[in-house]
Amino acid sequence: MKFVCYRDGGEELLGLVEDDMVRALDGYRGDLVGLIEQFDSLKFSLQPKGEAIPIDDIELLAPIPRPRRNIFCVGKNYREHAREFAGSGYEAGAKKGAEIDEFPAVFTKPASTVIASRQDVDLHADITDSVDYEIELSLIIGKRGKNIAAERAYEHIWGYTIINDVTARDRQKQHKQWFLGKSLDTFCPMGPWAVTADEIEPENLDLETRVNGEIRQNANTRDLIFSIPSLVATISAGLTLMPGDIIATGTPAGVGIGFNPPKFLQSGDIVEMGITGLGTLTNTFR
Amino acid sequence: MKFVCYRDGGEELLGLVEDDMVRALDGYRGDLVGLIEQFDSLKFSLQPKGEAIPIDDIELLAPIPRPRRNIFCVGKNYREHAREFAGSGYEAGAKKGAEIDEFPAVFTKPASTVIASRQDVDLHADITDSVDYEIELSLIIGKRGKNIAAERAYEHIWGYTIINDVTARDRQKQHKQWFLGKSLDTFCPMGPWAVTADEIEPENLDLETRVNGEIRQNANTRDLIFSIPSLVATISAGLTLMPGDIIATGTPAGVGIGFNPPKFLQSGDIVEMGITGLGTLTNTFR
Repeated sequence: MKFVCYRDGGEELLGLVEDDMVRALDGYRGDLVGLIEQFDSLKFSLQPKGEAIPIDDIELLAPIPRPRRNIFCVGKNYREHAREFAGSGYEAGAKKGAEIDEFPAVFTKPASTVIASRQDVDLHADITDSVDYEIELSLIIGKRGKNIAAERAYEHIWGYTIINDVTARDRQKQHKQWFLGKSLDTFCPMGPWAVTADEIEPENLDLETRVNGEIRQNANTRDLIFSIPSLVATISAGLTLMPGDIIATGTPAGVGIGFNPPKFLQSGDIVEMGITGLGTLTNTFR
Repeated sequence: MKFVCYRDGGEELLGLVEDDMVRALDGYRGDLVGLIEQFDSLKFSLQPKGEAIPIDDIELLAPIPRPRRNIFCVGKNYREHAREFAGSGYEAGAKKGAEIDEFPAVFTKPASTVIASRQDVDLHADITDSVDYEIELSLIIGKRGKNIAAERAYEHIWGYTIINDVTARDRQKQHKQWFLGKSLDTFCPMGPWAVTADEIEPENLDLETRVNGEIRQNANTRDLIFSIPSLVATISAGLTLMPGDIIATGTPAGVGIGFNPPKFLQSGDIVEMGITGLGTLTNTFR
């Protein structure tokens, strides 16, 4: 099932997507995190109802517009990207020959950074001049768990969505810890929808980013350095994961700092990010 | 005013502390974040009511037991601590002669790590063998704001509390980004209470940590590298701060890795942290 969250009048509603058409959700009232918490008991009673509306005609929100806590994010999780980042001059403490980390880098973005597909990203031109895009397959946790063994990780994943882990490269470098460079308001486009795990083959998904129509990132999740199960195991070691938690799994090569000179985003740029089965996340930067 | 949160029967209540005695709060029902949001209109009607109970006899909770988002934390914000950390072997990428950063390191701890004074910290012995303490003066934001100028920062601070930024040093080093080493369940003792800004002189507070009675950290907030106003300005640049947000301002020298060999916490260790006017945060590690 593909769930969208959208605004209709003053209300936030959930809908089901099929072939780019949206119908309202019957069998549950509330937000997606609440639905995820009760998914096992609800899933057979969830049905579309009413008129089918083209997805382009609804006021789309992020599938989880207000995550209950910061989004967990993984850095340097594709080899070529780890090398382009280390070679860009924007990685604090980068060392030649040590581009690939032994342990995953994990940081967070505040929930308040989340916006939907088709909403504008603020370039924060008064604060940074080096805003960059990062397409990331993102996991949505369905089942509470601590010390989750890698071989049980998929039992804890409810579904998937796309995140653009927008980054101010100057702040990411200056502050060494990446949080501030990742956390400016609007820096987490998410969506367009969330898809349940049964529809997705997460270890073989194509990812593609276009900027103004030009292909920039083009990769497959089979090239993740730290696999999805290992990430769930690592992050949940001693840290209880909760339904609705979101883990962005890292970005492949082709970000703006991978070019020489870097191609930072400019006002009016349109960034489209597609992942197999997860739709296309589209945002204009202003 | 000094606010405690405590459990009485099944209920979570707020109380007012005076001379180590607690009386229930009259004039408001709800949690501290809700109170902070309405503080300007409520403050003159808040009163203690009923019997005064010794604080030792109540079931204390953290003043904000479930922050609405991750806690903002600052690293390496006292010179001597920055040097002891860089010299300890536990700082990934540390460079001799570059111990003091030009920009503050900012990372987060999930809200789910928060516990109260007198609750036990889990040493997570299956995951780490290098658990360390860090006393930190912590700011509680009262007024929403983005791009807050340093000279207006204090208008946005509602009050103060103590946080022990408990850290698994091995994970902090291995993962380079500090989040995972800081985020194990129970790794954020907070309290014992929250004090409104009018009672505190934040740039001249003594901090003291004792482990099993032995003084380990002993410093004053006048020695912060990045001042409280500058931290509020830096963090709020492009990132909207909200009422109830918590900013831990960094720890002074004297943590376990400052010793050679390091003095990591062991099961049964009692850590007491006192800051002028903010009481004493006491936790046993197990």
